[in-house]
Order: sequence, then C-alpha cells, then structure tokens
Amino acid sequence: MVVVMAPDATDEDVAAVVAKVESVGGEAFVSKGVVRTIIGLVGDIDSFHHLNLRTLRGVADVHRISDPFKLVSRQHHPERTTVWVGPAGHQVPIGPDTFTFAAGPCAVESAEQTMEAAAMAKSAGATLLRGGAFKPRTSPYAFQGLGVAALEILADVREATGMPVVTEVVDARDVPVVADHADMLQIGTRNMSNFSLLQAVGRAGKPVLLKRGMTSTVEEWLMAAEYIAQRGNLDIVLCERGIRTFEPSTRNTLDLSAVPVVQASSHLPVIVDPSHAAGRKDLVVPLSRAAIAVGADGIIVDVHPDPEKALCDGPQALLGQELRDLATAVRRLPPAVGRVDAAELVRA
Amino acid sequence: MVVVMAPDATDEDVAAVVAKVESVGGEAFVSKGVVRTIIGLVGDIDSFHHLNLRTLRGVADVHRISDPFKLVSRQHHPERTTVWVGPAGHQVPIGPDTFTFAAGPCAVESAEQTMEAAAMAKSAGATLLRGGAFKPRTSPYAFQGLGVAALEILADVREATGMPVVTEVVDARDVPVVADHADMLQIGTRNMSNFSLLQAVGRAGKPVLLKRGMTSTVEEWLMAAEYIAQRGNLDIVLCERGIRTFEPSTRNTLDLSAVPVVQASSHLPVIVDPSHAAGRKDLVVPLSRAAIAVGADGIIVDVHPDPEKALCDGPQALLGQELRDLATAVRRLPPAVGRVDAAELVRA
Amino acid sequence: MVVVMAPDATDEDVAAVVAKVESVGGEAFVSKGVVRTIIGLVGDIDSFHHLNLRTLRGVADVHRISDPFKLVSRQHHPERTTVWVGPAGHQVPIGPDTFTFAAGPCAVESAEQTMEAAAMAKSAGATLLRGGAFKPRTSPYAFQGLGVAALEILADVREATGMPVVTEVVDARDVPVVADHADMLQIGTRNMSNFSLLQAVGRAGKPVLLKRGMTSTVEEWLMAAEYIAQRGNLDIVLCERGIRTFEPSTRNTLDLSAVPVVQASSHLPVIVDPSHAAGRKDLVVPLSRAAIAVGADGIIVDVHPDPEKALCDGPQALLGQELRDLATAVRRLPPAVGRVDAAELVRA
Amino acid sequence: MVVVMAPDATDEDVAAVVAKVESVGGEAFVSKGVVRTIIGLVGDIDSFHHLNLRTLRGVADVHRISDPFKLVSRQHHPERTTVWVGPAGHQVPIGPDTFTFAAGPCAVESAEQTMEAAAMAKSAGATLLRGGAFKPRTSPYAFQGLGVAALEILADVREATGMPVVTEVVDARDVPVVADHADMLQIGTRNMSNFSLLQAVGRAGKPVLLKRGMTSTVEEWLMAAEYIAQRGNLDIVLCERGIRTFEPSTRNTLDLSAVPVVQASSHLPVIVDPSHAAGRKDLVVPLSRAAIAVGADGIIVDVHPDPEKALCDGPQALLGQELRDLATAVRRLPPAVGRVDAAELVRA
Repeated sequence: MVVVMAPDATDEDVAAVVAKVESVGGEAFVSKGVVRTIIGLVGDIDSFHHLNLRTLRGVADVHRISDPFKLVSRQHHPERTTVWVGPAGHQVPIGPDTFTFAAGPCAVESAEQTMEAAAMAKSAGATLLRGGAFKPRTSPYAFQGLGVAALEILADVREATGMPVVTEVVDARDVPVVADHADMLQIGTRNMSNFSLLQAVGRAGKPVLLKRGMTSTVEEWLMAAEYIAQRGNLDIVLCERGIRTFEPSTRNTLDLSAVPVVQASSHLPVIVDPSHAAGRKDLVVPLSRAAIAVGADGIIVDVHPDPEKALCDGPQALLGQELRDLATAVRRLPPAVGRVDAAELVRA
Repeated sequence: MVVVMAPDATDEDVAAVVAKVESVGGEAFVSKGVVRTIIGLVGDIDSFHHLNLRTLRGVADVHRISDPFKLVSRQHHPERTTVWVGPAGHQVPIGPDTFTFAAGPCAVESAEQTMEAAAMAKSAGATLLRGGAFKPRTSPYAFQGLGVAALEILADVREATGMPVVTEVVDARDVPVVADHADMLQIGTRNMSNFSLLQAVGRAGKPVLLKRGMTSTVEEWLMAAEYIAQRGNLDIVLCERGIRTFEPSTRNTLDLSAVPVVQASSHLPVIVDPSHAAGRKDLVVPLSRAAIAVGADGIIVDVHPDPEKALCDGPQALLGQELRDLATAVRRLPPAVGRVDAAELVRA
Repeated sequence: MVVVMAPDATDEDVAAVVAKVESVGGEAFVSKGVVRTIIGLVGDIDSFHHLNLRTLRGVADVHRISDPFKLVSRQHHPERTTVWVGPAGHQVPIGPDTFTFAAGPCAVESAEQTMEAAAMAKSAGATLLRGGAFKPRTSPYAFQGLGVAALEILADVREATGMPVVTEVVDARDVPVVADHADMLQIGTRNMSNFSLLQAVGRAGKPVLLKRGMTSTVEEWLMAAEYIAQRGNLDIVLCERGIRTFEPSTRNTLDLSAVPVVQASSHLPVIVDPSHAAGRKDLVVPLSRAAIAVGADGIIVDVHPDPEKALCDGPQALLGQELRDLATAVRRLPPAVGRVDAAELVRA
Repeated sequence: MVVVMAPDATDEDVAAVVAKVESVGGEAFVSKGVVRTIIGLVGDIDSFHHLNLRTLRGVADVHRISDPFKLVSRQHHPERTTVWVGPAGHQVPIGPDTFTFAAGPCAVESAEQTMEAAAMAKSAGATLLRGGAFKPRTSPYAFQGLGVAALEILADVREATGMPVVTEVVDARDVPVVADHADMLQIGTRNMSNFSLLQAVGRAGKPVLLKRGMTSTVEEWLMAAEYIAQRGNLDIVLCERGIRTFEPSTRNTLDLSAVPVVQASSHLPVIVDPSHAAGRKDLVVPLSRAAIAVGADGIIVDVHPDPEKALCDGPQALLGQELRDLATAVRRLPPAVGRVDAAELVRA
C-alpha cells in the first residue's frame, strides 16, 4: 500500500501515519518529494485496512498495490485450473486445453421443449446442457420459471442425453434442491454481489458457474469468486456475459478483453455467453467465433426449438442455419487457436 | 406497443403480425410508410409480451410505449404518498410536504459507538437512525457486521433516543429477525435486483427503504419497487445513492436528476444518500444541500464519533464542523423550497 | 510517482528502474515488501514521463500521484478566480462570491427571435446572453446555425440590452470573427478535446466558457483548460453540462458533484448548464435549484419565445411559468448559500 | 416516426398533431389505446423534425423509426464497399472479401525509427503503414508530433517500402498538406464529432479512416461518416478502437459487437484497433485474433523498434515474439473465416 500525503501535510502528520502502521507491526518507508511525501507500507495488508489511514490528517490518498483476492489469484497458483462438471461417467472438462460448448433453452418450459432443445444442442456439438428453472426477471409480471418441476425435467433430460446440467439458483434457500438435481450451479449476473448466495453455493459441493455482474469490474468479479472459494469450493468457472455501457445497439457490450485479463490474474477457467450480451441472434455466431479466438475456455448459448413461442429471451435463441453455422465454428476454430474440443475428453 | 417492420417486410409478414395480435384480443393499426410499415397495438400489453413479436419474420423492432410498472406508478395514483416510519408515538413521515433527515453510523460496531453516533445525529436534527447490522462487503475479508447483536443494540438505542431505526437486510432468511427489531428494512444497492429478497420484504409488514442499484436505470428501480408492492406492501421509500460511471473522482456519480424524474412517474417518496455516492466527506454537505434543493423528500447520511476507528466507510462519515454545517443546511434550506422539517411532524 | 514491481521482479529489475530515474536527476526510494517492491520517485515528474518506465522488465504498474495540471491548479493559486465578461461599462463577474445567470436561445434564428429571447432572459434576471451562431449537430441534415449573420444579430442585441454575449466557436478558423463580435467564446462539449481549437481560443484575448466533454473525466476537463491557459489566457470558466451514462430518462446525467470537486482542485469558476443535461424542460428548474445549492458560480439556461418553432433543442427551452419559477429560484436561493446576485455587481 | 400521446391528452391535442403533420404533406395514422393514443407518421421524416412535435401539448414522446443516415446506409446500397488505398501500383483493398493488416509506430519520431518500424510491420505481413505526425494529447506538456517533418518522413518510407501511408489529421487547416503526403487521412477518436474537420476531409479527395469516438454510439459514428460522405467522399473505412466504460483493467473496452452491427447497417468497411483499446501489449494478440474471427475487414496495430524509448504509447507497442504471434494469426485465421489476405490482392 502507498499513502500519498497532501501538499500541506506536516512532519507530524507523516509521523502519525508511520506510528499507526508500526502499531500493527508494519513498516513504513517515507519518500519526501518537493511537493508531496509518499509513504510505502510493507507488511500485512489486511491489518492496514483497519487503520482507516484515509481519515488521518494530511493524508490525500491511499493506493492499494496488490490484488485483494488470494485463493483465486494466479499469483500463488500459476497453473490454470480445469473444472470437471457432471456425474462419474459423463464428466466434461472446462479449462485451458479444451473448448467447451454449453447450450440449451433460456428457460425450461416443458419436458418436450427441453428435450428437443437438448437434442439440438447435442447435435450441434454441445456437451453441457443449460436451462433455467428459476428465472430472475426485471418485471414481477414476467414468467418466473417452473422451479422444482423444471429441475426434474432437467434431470430426466440429462438421463436421456448424458449431458450434465447447469442451471441458475437465485435464492440461498433453494441451493440444496438445485444441488440435488443439477451438476453445476449458476450464479446469474444480478446476483453476483449477493454475498449470502455466494456463500451458500460455496458450501454446496457442486461446481459453480459465476456470471459477471453486468456492472462489475473484473476485480469485483474475482472478489465474488473469492467469496465462494473461501467456503471451500474452488470448482468455479467464470462467465463473461456483457457489461452495461451507453451503446444501445446491443443489450449489453460483450467485454472480450476480460477473457485474457482474467486469465492473466486468476487460475480459474473463463467462458463467454454471447446470447445474453447481444440480445439478438444475428450476433451470436460472430461473437462466438470471437470468443473462441480470444482464448475463452468455452461458450454458453441459448437454443430453442421454437423461438416464437419461447417464454424468455426468444429473440436471441438460435435454431436452423445459425445453429449449424455455430456448430461449424465450434468444430473448426478451436484447433486454430490450440484447443481440443472438450467433447473428445469427456471422462467415461 | 408499436411494431416496426423491416424495409423488406412483405404484406404477408404484416398480416401475420396483425393476426397474432388479434388472436389474443388486441387491435392492430397499420401505417404503411414509403420505406417502412409500422403497426400500433391496442389492448392488453401483458398478453402482447407473450407473442414474441420480435421473432416474427419481417419484424425489425418492437417499442414499448407505456410504463411497465403499475402499483407504484403515478398514473393511477396521482397523489404522492407519505410513508410513516416508527412505532406508535414516534412515527416519522417521509413524503412530499416534509424533509426527513436520517443519520447514523455506516455499521454498528458497539453499543457505545452507536449511542454516541445517535446522539450526534439527533443533535444535528436527524429524526431517523440508520445503522448497519449485516454489511454486504466486496471482500470476504472485510468486516461483515455484528448481525443480530447489532439489531439488539439498535433497538436499545431507539429506546433511549426515540429515533426509529432503519437497517439493511441482505438475506431473505434474515427478514423476520430484522423486521422484529427495526422500523424500516433497507434493501441495499447490490440487492436491488435480488428478487427473492424483494418479495420477502414485501411480506414483512414494515416500511422498506429501496436503494437504487448502482447500475440500474430509474425504470428498473421502479420495477424493483413493483416487486415489493406486488406482495402487498406499498410503504416503500426510494433512495438515490449514485450510479456507476466513468468518472473516478467520486465513488459513484450522484444522479440528482433521478429525484424529479421519479417524482414525475411514481407516487413513492424518494430520498438521497450523498455519503455513499461521494465516498468522501468534503462533498457530503454540498451534495446534501443540492438534494434538498432538487426536491428530495429526505437525506440519509453517515456519521461516526471517531471516523479513524470506523470499521466501514470511515472516510465519508461526518463529525464536528461538517456535521454542524449539515445541521444548518437541513434547518434553513427546506423552507426555501417549500418543505417543513419532518421533526416538527412526528406523530405522537 | 510510484512504480510497482511485479511479484517476480528481480533485484536487477529494481536496480534498472532506479538507474533510469537517477539518469534524469531523480531520486528513487525502494520499499521492499513481502510480495512486491514499490519504488517512490522524487524529482521532476515531466522528465519521468519520458522514461517509459511501464515498458521496463519487472514493472507491473506506474501510479501518478500529483495532479497533471499546473496553471489551473489551486495548489499554487489557492485564491479562487473571478472572471469578468463583457465590454467596459457592462462587465459581469463569474466567481466565488457571486451567482451569475446566463440565458438565451439555443440557436440564433432571427433578429426578432433573439431580441425576444434576450428580453425574456433579462426580465428573468439574467445578466449574460447566450445564443448559438455555429451549431455542431449530430446530423449533417440538421440546422447548422446562421454563422456570421447570427454573430451580427447577437452584437445588435447586446447593444440594445447591455447584456454581454457568449457564443460557441467550432472551428479554429472562425475564432477571429467570433472574438470580434462576442464577449466570451464557448467551447462546446464535442470540442473539449479539439486541442487546435483550444489553443486558438487561448490566443484570442477573450474569456472562454469551456464545457465539459460529455464523456470526459474532471481531470481531462482541467487538462483541456490547461491547454487554453498555456497560451496565456486564464480567463476560463468551466461548465458542467452532463455526462454520458447508461440512464436513458435524461439526455445526459448532470454530475453536480463535479462542482465541488473542481472547486477543490482548481481556482477557475464553474457554472452549470441544466438544459442540455436534461434535454427536457420539466427538470430545468429543479436542477437549477440544485446547482445553486451545490455551490455553482452560475447557470446557463435555454429560453425561447416559441419553443414549438425552435430550430434546435425546443423541448428543453423555458418560457412562461417555468421561467418565472427559475427567476424566483435565482433571486432567493443564492443568498441562502452565501452568494450575491452578479446583477448587483456589474462593473459600470 | 411515432408520436406517443400522454395519458391525459385530449382529442384536441391529437387533432393538433395530425394537423401539423398534414401541414407539411405528411400522413398521420391515429391508434387510440385504452390508456394512450399513438400516432404513426408517414412521409418525409426530415420535414417532421422541424415540427418540434415533442413541444406540443399532450405529446409524451416521439420515437424515430428509421435510420437517420442515408449515404452510408446499407438500405439503398446492399453491396458492401471495398475501399482502395494507395497510389497506382500499390493499391491495397479494405473490404468484405479481404483482411487488411495495417501497422506502424504510434508517432513518427525520426526517419530511422519510422523506417525500422515499417520494416518490422512489413515483415509481419502488414500492407499499410500507420504513423502519427500530428498527435492529439490529453496534456499540453506531452509530445505533440513532428508535424510536416513527419509527413515527409512517411512519404520517404512509403517510397522505400511500397506501403501506402495512413496518418491522422487534427486541424482542418492541415488537411491539404496531409492529403499531399499521405494516402489515407485518419480522423482520431477525439475528433469524431469535429464536424468542421469531417467536412474538410470529405473534400480532400483521399480515403478516410474514421475512428469511433470513445464515447460515441454506433449511430453517431455512422452519422459522422455521413458528414464526410455528404461532401462527396464515400471512400470511408470505419475503425472500432474501444469505448469508455467503468472497467479499469483496459484503457477502453473494445466493442467487437460493433463490427457485425455496423456491417448489418452500413456498406462501409470496418477495421479494429486493438492497441489503443487495450493500452497494454499482452492483450493485442488475443484481441487481434478476436477481431479477425468476429469478421473485421482489417486491423491496425502499433509496433515500435524500441518501445522503451517511444515518445507515445510505448506500453502497447509490439515487437519480437508478440509481433511474430500476430503475424501467425494474420496469416492463419482469416482463411478460417473466409477471407483472403489483402497482401495478395494489392493492385499493381
């Protein structure tokens, strides 16, 4: 940490900072400049936080220097992690060497629709099935998901197709029932800072798919992962899904730079959701291609057998030619950037 | 709703939209332009949503025309609402005719600190006591609040000072215990889209202080209020607390325009939190003055007897001269914009 | 400046940084931490910039500590500045002790319309006349202003009313003719980073009204002022006019926090334009009140005798009751925050 | 256009809107809803703009339906355009079938440095040379470019290498001299809304590279292109270079979605600048790969023989292994998405 003193700070002000730092066992290195004095702190950063140095007289600013996350940091864990999702015999890897394709309907609406969507997803090359049972919707008057009935449908479809299931959980009280039925628990963008929920999934014993808050920085996202990790669960996959900006032509702005940024500072895998970022299906294939090329460890895409009748996000769901184009991209592009299709590595 | 057809849409495409709208009992008015055709829809908007018109062939765009919220809208409830907070004998109004000043420590740290902060707040003119028992923190390593012990301290301080208590709830499972101890339940900025929690406080039978999501539009904020209202609780006070922008000189950008914008479209009261928006105490007094002048129904401000020792957000807590300046502003400015100090109207 | 070394930086890497700093006459203080080493630099910051320290091996980051602006900084010029606008006998002050009200039509459309708008502005208490001769418009098909003809109209109206004139200049080649006719040259939000234009007005010998770029930080805004100051002109008034955010209910988000932020770091006066920020007239009066209360040195507002016929920004122009409400606010509120109406101080 | 009436609008208010529209030869279709009335307008949109319908009594909102740009729209020009850059014998295409790689130093610092950077660029596969002669810098104390001397260096290097030259112009007065020396005139991000400059390059008779304003919407960007096109120059190449968001880990957020969005609505080519978006060189190769995969018509990248000594943006300049990785990506990936390397199609 670095403490920057105001231009009019006195020697006493500087001494007071030094004394406070030393009082918790830290060391303080004073650099006296012509205009300003800066003080470099060495020691246990967490203990410095409690000092509230910013409130001391003469202190202009306090800069944090090192990353605030630890368990998910690449610093002490340079090897990038592979997370395995699914029951024994059907484990799908998500990690640095593979490219994993997850697909399915935004919401589970019926057994037939889910089965059909899963079949579409599978024939396009997907190895993981996504599908919403609990839907967080901006309007209380919109379809909120089928809940537990949907979880049962998803479990049946996994049985039939062999595809492990990822589904969202929106309430800490639902974590046990979702963990009973699904193979991976998704934290949605609106709940990334719902710390109670993060702690609950951290204790659930299943891999977690942590979507980036649509208005969260990469650092806040990694801190949310740290909440989960801190409860003992390091099977976390991050998912970039677009951030809120001023640009109205897409629902959100897909921040593909976040993929290499995350990979440089965390050992966790990171995948991309182009469907929810774009909100329109004509962009899903080009953005999926870009996600593969930028080095994402996978993508997760909405498909629906009949988008006109979808109860949720119909305009972004793929089918027909667009899904075939996506299947082609997923087959051809990963090898061009040094990746193996995860489908070839499912653990039997 | 208005459906905009693509330039190359055919007559059949237009007819298909009309047929769909009529199939749910709506009317469709077709305006054929030189380049584009637009179709105005009249009828039950909720039924139109389920049609997924945006996925039909030839449809370029669908514009919603009317507000998506109902219970909190001013349209059918033109009179602005006053919410009364506190037990019989100490009810404080928040509404269009008064100006309500709430203050207290960001976090409850001890009985002494809370009592001292409450005394400071009261002598500065505050009628409501704020204080955090459960703190949502970006880092799992930061102080998370004293929990139920803090609720008990707050209840004791209310007893001693007569100030009704507002405190945050972050987990639906905690709603009953918080409602037992506090007079008003606060939903924090990170939980504005935690729909389970919104529904839980909607059933709790206590007034709710709903902070704006730091990255939520005004419309999304009012939809969050609609979630609470839909469970039967219309005692909701909105709180503007800054939005996330590119500007780094303040923690968030206080959006004071949101106050008159909300007041034009909703009957709910709206107050302002300048402390959390600014993140630095030198801005709290000028922003409080601006909040009064823009027409806010109240403000909520952090105070702390010893900011250096604060376990949370010390740099923004007021004391001494700044608190006296704020007290002066709260006494003098509201009358200049046609408001009565809520302190004079506490219901005995 | 502070150089933060990467965790894997070697002693040689640290030594190389120190050597570079010393090679230009600077001093480097090394603080070796458990995980990272930080190096505090003392000396001439400009010389450090040319070292490209960020490109050296082992360097993780470089933090600038002091402000990059000098002439407009309050550090060496603690007294806040008053800028006087207008010809001898009609000089209007803009500064820390007064509150200055500027008003007029968005665009000069005719002599009659401008004269009428000026009369409205004057009777509402305005002392400065605004009016656009050159209009930067997003569409090449929109009205672009009357140009020099408008400048002549403005000069005539000043003659008739005694109100000094502020008008925008959008092209460095037009600076001489605008400076010949107007009393204050406005740099619009789209040109805040048009450095050629900034330098041109810096040499023009007239006060400058520098609007904040709608997507500029406060620091970039002050650096733009520094460009003007560097050419010898310190008669600069800053104008906050809203920044671009995700919120769609206003055209831009008025950042009133910027007023005290600027006043803390620069000695230049700062005024507020609520009309262009809001884009809708019902918000102009409440936002003007808020601007006064937050401590702005003035406001600048659109008025038009017939907004329906306005060639530019009709929806935000005031007239009738709203203008009377604004006149009342401008008369009553400044004294409540310790300001004198600039109208009383016009230098005869 | 669609006019939305307020819930309390009267029949007279509706009639007044209809009358206004008919007064300029338009047709108005009235759809009376239960709560609101909407009016669809058919006819010449430009004439409707002058009506200021939003200021009429009872009007709540006015929605524009069709695109405001014409000459650059794909609507009347469905074939995507190829722009050829360079003198006879060395013409390089930028368009839908090819992938064009432009590279060079951020700023021209000397003949040697520019020649070396051009050789690096050429051997990595670049066919166009970029290099700054006039540099718009946030600080007036930063290196502002060598000006005309740099233009002469660039012309010499073109002579030596056969690479056509693209360079930025920041002042309308410099357009003739830049057009005399360079093959393509660049409008930088800070000048995208400098309409005088846009008009000047529109008349200069050379192709234009129009960077997106860092805070401009796609629509505003296309309107800026319309300004150039309106002066008779349709040889415009758009360049996405990152937009300003809240995320601090990159200098700007590269908006790759903008590439397919632009290609859907405009016939102009669009390329990507990953260097200035990221501001750090470790992201340039992954983002370049992503740009190719998303379907960009080219990329433009900073290279420098000695980044430590660069006078501008050293931290983002490639050399060595990273440049070799980029060369590999540019050779291998475009064929995987159906593109030919522009280098094979240079017109002799």
